[in-house]
Amino acid sequence: MNGAESLVRSLLASGVDTCFANPGTSEMHFVAALDKVAGMRCVLGLAETVVTGCADGYARMTGRPAATLLHCGPGLANGTANVHNARRASTPMVNIVGDHATWHRPHDSPLTYDTEGLARTVSDWVRSSESSDRIGVDGAAAVQAAMTPPGRIATLILPADTAWSDGGRVADPLPVPQRSMVAPDTIRNVALALRRRERAVLVVSGQALGEEGLEAAQRVAHASGAMLKTSTQIPRMARGRGRVPVDRIPYAVDLAMRELGGVRHVVLVGARPPTGFFGYPEKPSLLAPSDAETHVLARPEEDAVAALHGLADELGAPARVGIPVGEVEPELHKGPFEPIAFATTLAALLPENCIVSEDAVTSGRALLAPTFNAAPHDWIQITGGAIGQGFPAATGAALACPDRKVVCLQADGAGMYTLQALWTQAREELDVVNVVFANRIYKILHGELLAVGARPGVASNELFDLARPELDWVHLANGMGVEAARVDRLEAFADAFRAACGRRGPFLIQFDI
Amino acid sequence: MNGAESLVRSLLASGVDTCFANPGTSEMHFVAALDKVAGMRCVLGLAETVVTGCADGYARMTGRPAATLLHCGPGLANGTANVHNARRASTPMVNIVGDHATWHRPHDSPLTYDTEGLARTVSDWVRSSESSDRIGVDGAAAVQAAMTPPGRIATLILPADTAWSDGGRVADPLPVPQRSMVAPDTIRNVALALRRRERAVLVVSGQALGEEGLEAAQRVAHASGAMLKTSTQIPRMARGRGRVPVDRIPYAVDLAMRELGGVRHVVLVGARPPTGFFGYPEKPSLLAPSDAETHVLARPEEDAVAALHGLADELGAPARVGIPVGEVEPELHKGPFEPIAFATTLAALLPENCIVSEDAVTSGRALLAPTFNAAPHDWIQITGGAIGQGFPAATGAALACPDRKVVCLQADGAGMYTLQALWTQAREELDVVNVVFANRIYKILHGELLAVGARPGVASNELFDLARPELDWVHLANGMGVEAARVDRLEAFADAFRAACGRRGPFLIQFDI
Repeated sequence: MNGAESLVRSLLASGVDTCFANPGTSEMHFVAALDKVAGMRCVLGLAETVVTGCADGYARMTGRPAATLLHCGPGLANGTANVHNARRASTPMVNIVGDHATWHRPHDSPLTYDTEGLARTVSDWVRSSESSDRIGVDGAAAVQAAMTPPGRIATLILPADTAWSDGGRVADPLPVPQRSMVAPDTIRNVALALRRRERAVLVVSGQALGEEGLEAAQRVAHASGAMLKTSTQIPRMARGRGRVPVDRIPYAVDLAMRELGGVRHVVLVGARPPTGFFGYPEKPSLLAPSDAETHVLARPEEDAVAALHGLADELGAPARVGIPVGEVEPELHKGPFEPIAFATTLAALLPENCIVSEDAVTSGRALLAPTFNAAPHDWIQITGGAIGQGFPAATGAALACPDRKVVCLQADGAGMYTLQALWTQAREELDVVNVVFANRIYKILHGELLAVGARPGVASNELFDLARPELDWVHLANGMGVEAARVDRLEAFADAFRAACGRRGPFLIQFDI
Repeated sequence: MNGAESLVRSLLASGVDTCFANPGTSEMHFVAALDKVAGMRCVLGLAETVVTGCADGYARMTGRPAATLLHCGPGLANGTANVHNARRASTPMVNIVGDHATWHRPHDSPLTYDTEGLARTVSDWVRSSESSDRIGVDGAAAVQAAMTPPGRIATLILPADTAWSDGGRVADPLPVPQRSMVAPDTIRNVALALRRRERAVLVVSGQALGEEGLEAAQRVAHASGAMLKTSTQIPRMARGRGRVPVDRIPYAVDLAMRELGGVRHVVLVGARPPTGFFGYPEKPSLLAPSDAETHVLARPEEDAVAALHGLADELGAPARVGIPVGEVEPELHKGPFEPIAFATTLAALLPENCIVSEDAVTSGRALLAPTFNAAPHDWIQITGGAIGQGFPAATGAALACPDRKVVCLQADGAGMYTLQALWTQAREELDVVNVVFANRIYKILHGELLAVGARPGVASNELFDLARPELDWVHLANGMGVEAARVDRLEAFADAFRAACGRRGPFLIQFDI
């Protein structure tokens, strides 16, 4: 058995059974091993950032890593942006990066690259396999690293000769560390702070955004009067009727500071301290008042759900508390696109138990609050600010959950980064309704330019405008085998969306806004 | 004057007047400065690998660097593959990568990345600006580094606060090092070896692939009987009637070894030793016979043209020698696609003084020899093996040379990496005829899999096949504002190609092969 075959068998033994790939010559023995060994589902992406974005969406929905298969340093580089997004979501991911044979590398042939140096910039764990008899255990170690809470990026570099040489050995799965429990003292100290009944906010992220974690957080809020918020970026959240409606801290620094104004206690539950996405002149990086105390209830790798229940018990909360409902009732609106009217309409249309993949940028700022009372659904979102995550993450989520409808809410500028994902949706006949917000501008940048006090001129118009020529998403989707329609009013959107949800397979709706 | 404005003015003073960009929030002050200062042409690419590929094509044709403007680490990562190709072509390039304000960085907000670590993996020169009064001179130093022979990748990281703070100072251009001259002893020693009249090959690349360099190389060949070859990857080469027809060392290791069989002397002229693109089991990395002597006539950063003339003089060659013609006469063929018939047909159609951008992968293996007798033209090619360079390099070349027709020969699988470049062609109304070879498979990989002795199976079919669903390039091009046609026979191709050459603006021909 060669090294490549031992790696495929070891990955399967460790529970990795899906491989998103865009291989090249140095990965041919791995591909040959995939042919030989049954059980690994192989999914092609036509650009590497599609491959890694799919793996992110897949793992967010399954809780298990997919493997990616990438070709040398430049292949990894092409996929890096969505690995970065995954890393910021604490997504488990195992990247297999083929590379030159060890003895070929010193000759510096054209595709030679500092693959390991590149991998280190985006991974929590990096290893280069050194011999065919080590690849199996290296693969098992990569899965172990990826599954280490809260979820990590593991990148295994696979020199071609270690893949093709004999002597491969299949490795047993390695034990996966469990989430560590929060110390009782920590819980008591947070309870002590909250009992003062000063203005407090619980910032909840990661594991605690599941249905049970949110209910536990609601118990704490009920007993303490603390606000509940989630971080501005959402890895995955249980939402809709019957789930606790928790809004995110706004992206805009001024709005965020206003919402957190007067807060004396910031309690972090698997979340980082509320921080502005960017630094701006004369504005602080940290969004909470400078005299607020920060309490870490649970670090991202700790059991936040148990800690929340422990805190709620400590505060004397009842075992079950009422789940609040959102303020906005779902309703079909008419007329041209308007953010809240759209979100309210969408809330009326979202299918039961669907998955929403959101990379809607400016068009998405108002989506959360009006959809609290939609049918129950999961929401996954761009987490690292590297735009172009919506289509691929939707694609991976659809592969992970073939029985659930996926709704992709995609900004047009960001969508052009990874439009190739539509082809994978068509090839795999995935049940995704893609909604592209066609505002024909990098609108966020237009706003940011005004915010720095500049007046838009010739250059910024050249660099922000997407209207000249117009992007025709119906043609683009059709070119990749995805049916599509174009709408410019909410009532037409509702018709198109309902029709798309009523059939199987991918569909794209261009909403001219 | 803030730092950003001083940078724009310093770049202009150093002769950089074109900026390919996909900016983000952290680059807003640079964009505002572009609005304020006249003279910098700004060109938007809808994905960063388009941006960097354009800058590569532009600089290959002008000999001067363009600036790129990229957004933080993930923006640079998205553009890295084509920076790698540029680096392997010794293309001068100045990357400006915006990043977080220095004081915001420690807060590790979502887009925080090890930008400098990433830049080091693909750049010859990296600097992070530390204060607004240093940015101007940092920009001038970046241009100097990029222009240092043979051409280098300079990456300047621009923290947002150094861009927006006052105190910017415009820097004068810094002196650009000239190519160093080859020592007379080196030339005499190579002459001594060639005078033995043993089988010898001159491997010519870089500067020596211009018209004069090739003529000088032909003088050496005439006087010594040495073969002329160029490296497998071609940064830029003068070709066509009246130019010395020099073929490249074949990509396939066995073919290359056969061509170099019996060679006793390998003379490197701005080229690296002939090396296989990949290492294979039981095959050597170096393609020349192991007992051949290697002589370095000129390193890539040296004046290869002068050295070739010096060597020719030393060998007693006449000042002018006859220019050989190619063996194949241009001729319009009929019938379905066949590599040599296509190339021969193309040779009959290539417009005078056009630029060919080639990223045709397997469909391009036979393109060179049959096009030696075409009208004079320049040929630029993918150099680093990171596919998806054809469309962007063609786009940049067209911007560099608005009076020349550009012909882009693009494989379909590779083309899907960077199809967004078509939009930039439409927006800038560039005179590019794009030919997409639609073989609907990663054919190179199919061949490589067979070469490793494996039989294609389910997984490799999933990972190589591009036919399910079919990519419709007419729809894709139309979706980005580019007119297109589809052909499946050489005579239809000739009609479509002639029509496309007879009009201005971009066009795409999908050749079903």
